[in-house]
Amino acid sequence: MISISKEDFANLSKIHRLNLINSCTGYKSANLIGTISKKGTKNLAVFSSVTHLGSNPALLGFILRPTTVPRHTYQNIKETLFFSMNAITETSIKEAHQTSAKYQEDINEFEATGLEEECKENISIPFVKKSPLQLLCKYQNEYEIKENDTLLIVASIEKMYIDKLLLTNDFWIQLDKGNVVSINGLDGYSKNSLIDRLSYARPNEKSNSLK
Amino acid sequence: MISISKEDFANLSKIHRLNLINSCTGYKSANLIGTISKKGTKNLAVFSSVTHLGSNPALLGFILRPTTVPRHTYQNIKETLFFSMNAITETSIKEAHQTSAKYQEDINEFEATGLEEECKENISIPFVKKSPLQLLCKYQNEYEIKENDTLLIVASIEKMYIDKLLLTNDFWIQLDKGNVVSINGLDGYSKNSLIDRLSYARPNEKSNSLK
Repeated sequence: MISISKEDFANLSKIHRLNLINSCTGYKSANLIGTISKKGTKNLAVFSSVTHLGSNPALLGFILRPTTVPRHTYQNIKETLFFSMNAITETSIKEAHQTSAKYQEDINEFEATGLEEECKENISIPFVKKSPLQLLCKYQNEYEIKENDTLLIVASIEKMYIDKLLLTNDFWIQLDKGNVVSINGLDGYSKNSLIDRLSYARPNEKSNSLK
Repeated sequence: MISISKEDFANLSKIHRLNLINSCTGYKSANLIGTISKKGTKNLAVFSSVTHLGSNPALLGFILRPTTVPRHTYQNIKETLFFSMNAITETSIKEAHQTSAKYQEDINEFEATGLEEECKENISIPFVKKSPLQLLCKYQNEYEIKENDTLLIVASIEKMYIDKLLLTNDFWIQLDKGNVVSINGLDGYSKNSLIDRLSYARPNEKSNSLK
């Protein structure tokens, strides 16, 4: 085992530090957030920090660095309150990654990257076509994390669109059936395959497989 | 595609709602948090909400429901400020899952689940032996998410222990080389394999593979 301390982090080059610290918390979710500005420009950006916050009410959170790339996402969400969240699949990792480029504000990342847009009836927010798991979300609140000037955005899940192949009888979504990927660090995209589902754990009892 | 709305979520049974909403944000990180109480009782609990918050300073966050199982983790962190974070691997998913059982406060989950404890020199916090990626973290702050009465815990990464097989020349940690798993929903454990690493994205340029 190699041991690396806080003091060592400070002495690393910026890119080495980004690589190390971005990959040390484990696998991250892989989602594309779709928004539209008041003027009507559509925006799409990859996020790896989307996290489940609670089920009742259905809430999720994600982290924003207000001074870097996803600023258009933030501006648009503040203007319209709504956004889409689209699971990234194995066949679209290159296009999804490309949305992290610093495009100008008037650039529509669907057009720039070739990801196909899907319009839903009565919803102006763009979705990513062929994504097997799409959420319509609504901004609820933001918390300033003063330790590093980031923002935690809290949003409610208003509507969910799922490829029925992914949904089991007990309403669990089996993500690998849709080839949904996870993210390793800043730039690694990972394929997943289910090992097992385990029953609710109780003291002094062994969990069973639910597969 | 099946469409499920917010109103439908409310009509689902509790377990169906938990399954659905816990799995709709994508894959989650899989970590065991190790703590010790002031009295000296060691505690270990599985967490799927650990998220990278920033690299400089090195910060991570995770979500706590103060009224449910991981309360001992919270109490201990508040008492001692320190905790360990240990990546869960394929061979230990059953034992890791078992730590989510509601054990009494005086139960040491290392002993109850059979996960082997590792002691580091001059550190009282217990680590999980054989985990290829272990972090020593220090509590920095907490934010009350008032939308659902959860807490975001913010912590600094003080020290990192990595199996050298996982660390690349540019300080990226290749998690699948350590058989680190991800979590799908409440109870699904997933194996990972790297598809590709992609170079920094720039407008009007194609990313290259970094593998």
